[in-house]
Amino acid sequence: MIPRYTRKEMQAVWTEERKFNLWLDVELAVLKVFEEEGRIPRGASQRVRERVKINVSRIQEIENTVRHDVIAFLVHVAEQANPEDVRFLHFGMTSSDVLDTAFALQLREAGYILLDDLKKVGEVIESLMLEYSDAPAVGRTHGIHAEPITLGVKFASWLSETARNVKRMKEAVKEISVGKISGAVGVYGHVSPDLERRALELLGLRPEPVSTQVVPRDRHAAFFTALALCAGMVERIAVEIRHLQRTEVREVWEPFGRGQRGSSAMPHKKNPVLSENITGLARLVRSYTLAALENMPLWHERDISHSSVERVIAPDATIATDFMLNRLKNILEGLQVDVAQAVANLNLTRGLVFSESVLLALIDKGLSRDQAYILVQRNALKCWDEGGEFLEYLKADEEIMSYLSAEELDKCFDMKHALRHTGLIIDRVREEWKKVLEVLN
Amino acid sequence: MIPRYTRKEMQAVWTEERKFNLWLDVELAVLKVFEEEGRIPRGASQRVRERVKINVSRIQEIENTVRHDVIAFLVHVAEQANPEDVRFLHFGMTSSDVLDTAFALQLREAGYILLDDLKKVGEVIESLMLEYSDAPAVGRTHGIHAEPITLGVKFASWLSETARNVKRMKEAVKEISVGKISGAVGVYGHVSPDLERRALELLGLRPEPVSTQVVPRDRHAAFFTALALCAGMVERIAVEIRHLQRTEVREVWEPFGRGQRGSSAMPHKKNPVLSENITGLARLVRSYTLAALENMPLWHERDISHSSVERVIAPDATIATDFMLNRLKNILEGLQVDVAQAVANLNLTRGLVFSESVLLALIDKGLSRDQAYILVQRNALKCWDEGGEFLEYLKADEEIMSYLSAEELDKCFDMKHALRHTGLIIDRVREEWKKVLEVLN
Amino acid sequence: MIPRYTRKEMQAVWTEERKFNLWLDVELAVLKVFEEEGRIPRGASQRVRERVKINVSRIQEIENTVRHDVIAFLVHVAEQANPEDVRFLHFGMTSSDVLDTAFALQLREAGYILLDDLKKVGEVIESLMLEYSDAPAVGRTHGIHAEPITLGVKFASWLSETARNVKRMKEAVKEISVGKISGAVGVYGHVSPDLERRALELLGLRPEPVSTQVVPRDRHAAFFTALALCAGMVERIAVEIRHLQRTEVREVWEPFGRGQRGSSAMPHKKNPVLSENITGLARLVRSYTLAALENMPLWHERDISHSSVERVIAPDATIATDFMLNRLKNILEGLQVDVAQAVANLNLTRGLVFSESVLLALIDKGLSRDQAYILVQRNALKCWDEGGEFLEYLKADEEIMSYLSAEELDKCFDMKHALRHTGLIIDRVREEWKKVLEVLN
Amino acid sequence: MIPRYTRKEMQAVWTEERKFNLWLDVELAVLKVFEEEGRIPRGASQRVRERVKINVSRIQEIENTVRHDVIAFLVHVAEQANPEDVRFLHFGMTSSDVLDTAFALQLREAGYILLDDLKKVGEVIESLMLEYSDAPAVGRTHGIHAEPITLGVKFASWLSETARNVKRMKEAVKEISVGKISGAVGVYGHVSPDLERRALELLGLRPEPVSTQVVPRDRHAAFFTALALCAGMVERIAVEIRHLQRTEVREVWEPFGRGQRGSSAMPHKKNPVLSENITGLARLVRSYTLAALENMPLWHERDISHSSVERVIAPDATIATDFMLNRLKNILEGLQVDVAQAVANLNLTRGLVFSESVLLALIDKGLSRDQAYILVQRNALKCWDEGGEFLEYLKADEEIMSYLSAEELDKCFDMKHALRHTGLIIDRVREEWKKVLEVLN
Repeated sequence: MIPRYTRKEMQAVWTEERKFNLWLDVELAVLKVFEEEGRIPRGASQRVRERVKINVSRIQEIENTVRHDVIAFLVHVAEQANPEDVRFLHFGMTSSDVLDTAFALQLREAGYILLDDLKKVGEVIESLMLEYSDAPAVGRTHGIHAEPITLGVKFASWLSETARNVKRMKEAVKEISVGKISGAVGVYGHVSPDLERRALELLGLRPEPVSTQVVPRDRHAAFFTALALCAGMVERIAVEIRHLQRTEVREVWEPFGRGQRGSSAMPHKKNPVLSENITGLARLVRSYTLAALENMPLWHERDISHSSVERVIAPDATIATDFMLNRLKNILEGLQVDVAQAVANLNLTRGLVFSESVLLALIDKGLSRDQAYILVQRNALKCWDEGGEFLEYLKADEEIMSYLSAEELDKCFDMKHALRHTGLIIDRVREEWKKVLEVLN
Repeated sequence: MIPRYTRKEMQAVWTEERKFNLWLDVELAVLKVFEEEGRIPRGASQRVRERVKINVSRIQEIENTVRHDVIAFLVHVAEQANPEDVRFLHFGMTSSDVLDTAFALQLREAGYILLDDLKKVGEVIESLMLEYSDAPAVGRTHGIHAEPITLGVKFASWLSETARNVKRMKEAVKEISVGKISGAVGVYGHVSPDLERRALELLGLRPEPVSTQVVPRDRHAAFFTALALCAGMVERIAVEIRHLQRTEVREVWEPFGRGQRGSSAMPHKKNPVLSENITGLARLVRSYTLAALENMPLWHERDISHSSVERVIAPDATIATDFMLNRLKNILEGLQVDVAQAVANLNLTRGLVFSESVLLALIDKGLSRDQAYILVQRNALKCWDEGGEFLEYLKADEEIMSYLSAEELDKCFDMKHALRHTGLIIDRVREEWKKVLEVLN
Repeated sequence: MIPRYTRKEMQAVWTEERKFNLWLDVELAVLKVFEEEGRIPRGASQRVRERVKINVSRIQEIENTVRHDVIAFLVHVAEQANPEDVRFLHFGMTSSDVLDTAFALQLREAGYILLDDLKKVGEVIESLMLEYSDAPAVGRTHGIHAEPITLGVKFASWLSETARNVKRMKEAVKEISVGKISGAVGVYGHVSPDLERRALELLGLRPEPVSTQVVPRDRHAAFFTALALCAGMVERIAVEIRHLQRTEVREVWEPFGRGQRGSSAMPHKKNPVLSENITGLARLVRSYTLAALENMPLWHERDISHSSVERVIAPDATIATDFMLNRLKNILEGLQVDVAQAVANLNLTRGLVFSESVLLALIDKGLSRDQAYILVQRNALKCWDEGGEFLEYLKADEEIMSYLSAEELDKCFDMKHALRHTGLIIDRVREEWKKVLEVLN
Repeated sequence: MIPRYTRKEMQAVWTEERKFNLWLDVELAVLKVFEEEGRIPRGASQRVRERVKINVSRIQEIENTVRHDVIAFLVHVAEQANPEDVRFLHFGMTSSDVLDTAFALQLREAGYILLDDLKKVGEVIESLMLEYSDAPAVGRTHGIHAEPITLGVKFASWLSETARNVKRMKEAVKEISVGKISGAVGVYGHVSPDLERRALELLGLRPEPVSTQVVPRDRHAAFFTALALCAGMVERIAVEIRHLQRTEVREVWEPFGRGQRGSSAMPHKKNPVLSENITGLARLVRSYTLAALENMPLWHERDISHSSVERVIAPDATIATDFMLNRLKNILEGLQVDVAQAVANLNLTRGLVFSESVLLALIDKGLSRDQAYILVQRNALKCWDEGGEFLEYLKADEEIMSYLSAEELDKCFDMKHALRHTGLIIDRVREEWKKVLEVLN
């Protein structure tokens, strides 16, 4: 991933140095078990750990000859360690025992960072939700004003989706937290299931019940789909912010820094560029998922076609998702909400947002839904076309007034009543979020 | 989905008639609550259920005028029912209260069928696994012979993936089993959370904690990704069968019916067309998932762009996955396994599959991995190029013989030893599968 | 594709009956050449054509036994024809000679329909462009008001993209207009290149220079990418209409029929549902393309995994694109444009859309871009925050007035000047479109 | 893109330094026209070019404050140049005038490199095609042996696809070779179409007929689909090589370097890892295309969501495709072809590959296709099941021998006859390729 969209925390997971150190961890976990089995001298794994300093460029140098990254790594380790200690290094193992096990450690680490990101995003959303829990706004469907909501409920919807993503990400981390030390074709030809179990335990991983040469790639595909779902949420929120910042809407504003310039040409511009930016990144994460899904049907006991894909998308997808979540958090932390403008927008259609109340009041009076609909719609369309207050049109409609008193009609336009259940929704989501946090901590 | 790839069971979920009947179920569940609340006459919902017969073409006729499917449906119901009973039909509800709640019922039903498919596929795989648990075969990595495995382990790998898919599908069904009866913008403007809870309980669904006009689309996207993972497994197995049936390999044969013809031109052909067919269908299911992911970022409290996508992919993706799983089951049930040919293939490289044993034996004797590798590789490459038994080359290599006795070398070629842990793998997967079945039943 | 999104014209291309008739066309073209070669009796192909009536259900009946669609078709033909006439039917041919050649005819036909659709869409856009060529409106970037444009230019942008799609679709049709009658593995084992050339000429197709058993699938993939680009254009226009119909914007309205109802709950709603609908369909067409791209790497001289994909996406993608283009045409034909509202929106920011004019006027006076930017931006931000006319803020800024006279400042706000080149743009596109039409007719 | 898959030539197109230098080229092209118009002092553009040295880190430093990359760049230029010369720098332009025009130059440059890659790949394939034009091999369909071909024809199929990709890539380069200098919303508010035309001419680009703030993204999407088609071809060839190198097939071998090691565990391994590697990369390029397609429907006169996508995929997709084509070239240059093994494989089914010849000979004798099929199939199935020569089975079948003499039967097994037209195919493709080269040079 390009530096512009890379945060240090996630980048650290994917450096060459980190990778080789994780490879070393895996090899040493096995050596440790060999020690315990008495196969090699006591203390060997500890001595190797102390002596070996990973030097990425030296490994690459060796790889240029042997054309095989794990072999290059092993040679590099052997160069630095006591020969007696490393004679059984990689004994009975195949490259993928190291690669896939270390890859699981990386993906798990990435998953933990993303869980933390989600938690922080959720916390910011929660405080927005509480701050604006009672702020009325218009609910829009099809881009057209529908009925009143509160800004708090809008934020609650985001928080609830965040909670779902936490659960999915936890599940994905769990699915991927398996390693394998089962040899060239997964049948423990030269190692034992017991060795695998003990070595993986040292690394905090479970053994894959049936590996081939590799861990089956449906686990990884599942992990990447969790990222895509996460990215889809970020996109949904970003698109909402972009809509709400439109010049004609102006209910929220992305943070706009001192000295910032919105356009090289037009000094008046304040654009929601951060939200647009993460909207685009969601397309990327989605597309990476697709490549992960195509990685599943490997030939026989493995082909290595998945490897080039994973070398690219594992960092790219996790880095992009991490960046998106963090940028989203920053946007939300600095989000300016114009409550008055939200109210102004709510009133823009001069009462049309209460058309259903009138419809239902008429039905309550005994009209069929169809009859009532026709009466209300004819006034609504006039109101759209000619301007003026909806309530006035209704009051001027004798047929309607033959069913409803002016007072009854007025009651249809009661904002408080319309929003009477929003507190419950918010409480419900707070509860949901609290439970998620408990599981996370 | 075209009839060719459509099974009746799954098709039944997606007929227009079924859909309208589910809509009716949703409306009647609400009516039932209204009854209990004393809002409408006792027995109303029961009377409506008895009187109303869904007539799809009549609904379509009405839709041609009103251009709105739910309204057309409501008119259709009103035409047949006692006016007093249906005056409060759809009262305070919006179309999506019906649509999304019914959609959840359909997806859940589809999910149940797929769970049953998975179970049946798993059972067939399990019996293959047990039947061929000890049949030796060559493990291939990169398409190149690697080391011995058993056919049983190959099947075990499929069974373990089936088990994972069962778990994912169950999770997906759970995620999607929510409804909403929360009105036009999800804030219960004209209904109550209590009404929603009670009505959904009648349908066996949970309420969405925060809906907009609709149930948020990340739930649906998650459901479709579960299908893609399932399809990926089918593809993996299908590709394996295609490989194993290749003329040069011939270890398995797809069932080939009496009177069947493999080619219009070449009477000798027996092609793995069933497996090829489902390989292609996996591409479809993958692609549908992508559209589902793009459906997530709806505008504001909903836009309806997801609808056209779902009208197509909900049936198409579930029908295709159901078809794939069933076709896979049929292939596996009729699969002919040529155990002798598998052994012949295992011997094709004249012992090269034991090269690692020799490598490790040399290391055990005190050589470094690098030294041992060079000694073994030079004999292996000769064996590749010139033919002849690998063991003979090794025995003719004086340097090797200076480390190993002929007896020690012979022991490196012990097939039994190579496969000593395969039983454990199979036991492990049986256990895993048994647990999955328990949860399913 | 579901009936809801299927137009008769395109459906007709993909019926089973049509397909079998095209298969017959291919077989008869070859018979015709056999006649000319004196291999079979004169008039045979004509006699077969007269006698054979395609009966789809009879063919399916036969297929149930032979499990091969082309063989079933051949048996069906043989059942009806004079044995002597059809003895050489399919002689030396393989199924794909028939299938792929007929498939090319179908795709070409579909392509012609789409070209006609594009032409009609272009014509409607052209008339919108001309009708509103001078209607001022605000140009928006990032959703934020930028500078003045005309509605005509907006439409011109769509027309220019339509023209590009015509060119791409023509190219795609050309790429796909190849057949093959080269036998089981493409080397003319039992037919001759001359026979192929003559038979394909009768069908209006070119021979594939090197076929395997099939026409290589990159041609088909290229065809489907042309559909995706087309669908992307429709989506772009649909998204624009949805934006312009937003309650806060209201510059255009989709046609809204008499008796139409926008919502089951809210009688006031007029939603851009047609545009939303085709927005969703674009996701489908995009996803189909992906499956087509995955179809390319067939094994050896062909595997049949592409077939199940194509059976589904060839109709689905062309039908969906055809539907989208026609629905778009209908939307555009009935589009209500509110010119006054467009002007009102243009004035919404009280002159801020001229900020660049002021910037450039200051630069012209000798200020650096940076200095000028700071002066203009500080007034623009005040105007955003406090309301009021931008021009007034500028005039109250002494520093600015030290560089510009009030008259010079006024000139910066000249709408006519801002739009002086729009006529040229429109002329340019008309010219482009005229050329496209010439090529089409 | 990660360094492992990045070649220097393509990387150079996408460095920050290169990008800023292209931005300077665009700005200076406009300045040059201003000079010619007498708006600024003669020689200004030349003086700026001489003085300004792009310093990437300085630009980034400025961007940290202004949060806008083009503005940062302009400040950087202004810092170094004579104020009088750059006062009109960027005059009347918007950032995208620079960005999109420079982006076109980058994509064009990338396209030229890819065209050169394709040419080189084609040349290697051509020489393989000629070298093995007459080498018999088995054609395989469905993975099952079908009929004889030559290796030359296999290569010819690749060459023909390469030729098609050259044409598509040229078209894609042409589509993308447009710039825009039309201001903030594309209507030349502060610049003139004449200025644009002259400035773009200096850069070798055509003006976009109707731009918004940006060049419409269908052009870019079309470019990326051309990459996906290219990648699909590479994948097809790579998959073929992987199949042909399988241990059971062994007809070709990827180059295997001295000192190379195929596996860390198994010294005998020679794996087609290069081909597997590019198989995976094709999935990546395909996925990038999808993101490019989603970039099309920008809001109004542009939103910037496409930008983050393009910052990543423009380098990643072109670098990956360039890498794939070069790696493919290297594989093909070093490809070892085992002609004898190909013949051995052709004979593996003991004559079954001639079953169609026998079928047709029987039809020629007056049998119906159906009768003949049954006769040949029953012998073919026996031959599959029991081993033995197909010809012997036929000769032992009295019914067959009642139609054909032994001599006639023998003639059905004539390899020369089966391959008589392969020379023509190869000539045809050479001709096609020659024409492509002419256009390229």
